[in-house]
Amino acid sequence: MKFTAEQLTAYVKEIMLKMNLPQEDSQIVAESLVSANLRGVDSHGVTRIPIYVKRLKAGVVNPNPDIKVIEESGGTLLIDGDAGMGQVVGARAVERGINKAKENGSVYIGVKNSTHFGTGSYFANKGVKQDVITYAMSNAPSTMAPWGGKEPYFGTNPYAFGIPAGKNKPIILDMATSVVARGKIILSAQKGEEIPEGWAIDKEGRSTTNAQEALDGSVLPFGGPKGYAISMMIDVMSGVLTGAGFGPHINNIYGDFDKSQNVGHFFQMIDVSRFMPPEVFKERVDQMIEEIKESPKAEGVEEILVPGEIEANIEKERRANGITLSKEVYEDIKEVGESLGINITSYEEETNNKVGR
Amino acid sequence: MKFTAEQLTAYVKEIMLKMNLPQEDSQIVAESLVSANLRGVDSHGVTRIPIYVKRLKAGVVNPNPDIKVIEESGGTLLIDGDAGMGQVVGARAVERGINKAKENGSVYIGVKNSTHFGTGSYFANKGVKQDVITYAMSNAPSTMAPWGGKEPYFGTNPYAFGIPAGKNKPIILDMATSVVARGKIILSAQKGEEIPEGWAIDKEGRSTTNAQEALDGSVLPFGGPKGYAISMMIDVMSGVLTGAGFGPHINNIYGDFDKSQNVGHFFQMIDVSRFMPPEVFKERVDQMIEEIKESPKAEGVEEILVPGEIEANIEKERRANGITLSKEVYEDIKEVGESLGINITSYEEETNNKVGR
Repeated sequence: MKFTAEQLTAYVKEIMLKMNLPQEDSQIVAESLVSANLRGVDSHGVTRIPIYVKRLKAGVVNPNPDIKVIEESGGTLLIDGDAGMGQVVGARAVERGINKAKENGSVYIGVKNSTHFGTGSYFANKGVKQDVITYAMSNAPSTMAPWGGKEPYFGTNPYAFGIPAGKNKPIILDMATSVVARGKIILSAQKGEEIPEGWAIDKEGRSTTNAQEALDGSVLPFGGPKGYAISMMIDVMSGVLTGAGFGPHINNIYGDFDKSQNVGHFFQMIDVSRFMPPEVFKERVDQMIEEIKESPKAEGVEEILVPGEIEANIEKERRANGITLSKEVYEDIKEVGESLGINITSYEEETNNKVGR
Repeated sequence: MKFTAEQLTAYVKEIMLKMNLPQEDSQIVAESLVSANLRGVDSHGVTRIPIYVKRLKAGVVNPNPDIKVIEESGGTLLIDGDAGMGQVVGARAVERGINKAKENGSVYIGVKNSTHFGTGSYFANKGVKQDVITYAMSNAPSTMAPWGGKEPYFGTNPYAFGIPAGKNKPIILDMATSVVARGKIILSAQKGEEIPEGWAIDKEGRSTTNAQEALDGSVLPFGGPKGYAISMMIDVMSGVLTGAGFGPHINNIYGDFDKSQNVGHFFQMIDVSRFMPPEVFKERVDQMIEEIKESPKAEGVEEILVPGEIEANIEKERRANGITLSKEVYEDIKEVGESLGINITSYEEETNNKVGR
């Protein structure tokens, strides 16, 4: 159940190819999922393969989307994702956005008619490599009550950004606007584990530590009313402004198999060089990172961390030692492969020779 | 101690004129401060007059700044505020930004060499009136430890946005990235009141309910590490990217009277019409607001609110019944007026005839 990143990527790519995605698009989906596993964000990694394949098979995700710019101005793009895989739609948007930011200095990109886009850090990283500060956000099927409510309205609407650094790793934030990503609660439910108090309420609006009751109820926003406001902002930009679904008008990835999700995304991209030379900017970012890390620590704290540092450390370790999947996730994705005539063991064997079991 | 908005504005304007600000700039400062009092955000209202005047008198705020665009691309502006009043610098940036958003579709504006800009909602409102979605953020002198630290590094870096609505009031968020705005703790200290647990730590890193100890220590970010990350992002955009001060390299408004603050701001502005007709957008925003407000309420909740709604309700009430200042704030600003030969009673008398005492 251990894979190198390359082998897991190859396996996912093969599944996507079998689902009739083009070569390049299959690669994008595979890279995005495996990048999440590498960074320790297993909730957004290959655990999603069964549902993605199920939706592709049901015909509600388009393996060959005609992704089109439908409105364009000097500083904005509105893109129709044609119900493609969110990772593919997002990657196309961000590639176009990097070019536009280099030409125009910046861009805001709205995307409609898309689907679950995986981990936002995948997009943030793409921009960062080009010295383009990149924000990625998306709405999602409703799982979170408005502050003071008890019925889900908003999704856990993720918010991600990437800021290039010099000697240090880039600053990468990738967070759900709920206390925790719903994917973590899904994983807890799969493992039969309890969740901490304060993450969610049950469908009657009572606090719960039962993962399944939480999934049937509503997750809570981070930071109370402030997090609720930020989640709402993300839905306005991703959903209301783009013409995508918003609030409860986004179709559930696990429930609605007769229609596309109509998820919306919003990207913000800023070419650093329009403000100052990128080297100077990155030195200043380094200075901030180093000052923070050298700051006096509160009792019991071993190290002060900057956003993305934990994930970068896990990635380093997993690149060296391989990605270990839980038995449940392994069985799930093995079964999907078998249904498509792909044998997962041919991918892991090589790994296990390399990194040991 | 009760004023109409118009009379309080006239009083503040007179003070700013006496401090050698031009007519229009005096009006901007007065409107911004009184708008905060109107919205119930008294911490960012006229209570700031004594420190503003002290800094103007000390020569570290420039009453007649030469506010200049120093870098410009299709989608970006970098502005030097020339140590002017932050409200004035910000208002000029946003006015220019509205024009640029109308031409280019959008803009990102960095501002350096500015000072405390007051309430972010003042800027968000300016954009909203032109159907331009507007974000306003600023860094601030350090008062908040990084997550896991005990010594202040970041400011309470405010984050504000405004989204136009149709039949409903616009969505206006204006929040500190600390659990509460430091201004609220300052007011509590002035009144000798305790603050709730969880707002701040003392200078040893221990939780405190003593407002003065909190001011000597460090406020805490909203939402734990997520709020810390958002506060950091604001400082990167406002400070690192613009060339302004950042982290502890911003001069304290209450402490450093021999140099300008070198605060930085960051504004994001998006012309709604580049995505969809503004009427359609505003109908969709109305739909979201109405669906949220009609959503089932948790036990004990009377009404589900959207960002800015509490403030809009207070503004309605205060426009009708006047703004009542606390005795402390009244005495403070009365004294400032007297030092400049302005008699506050000539402003309130008329009010008291109108609205009763």
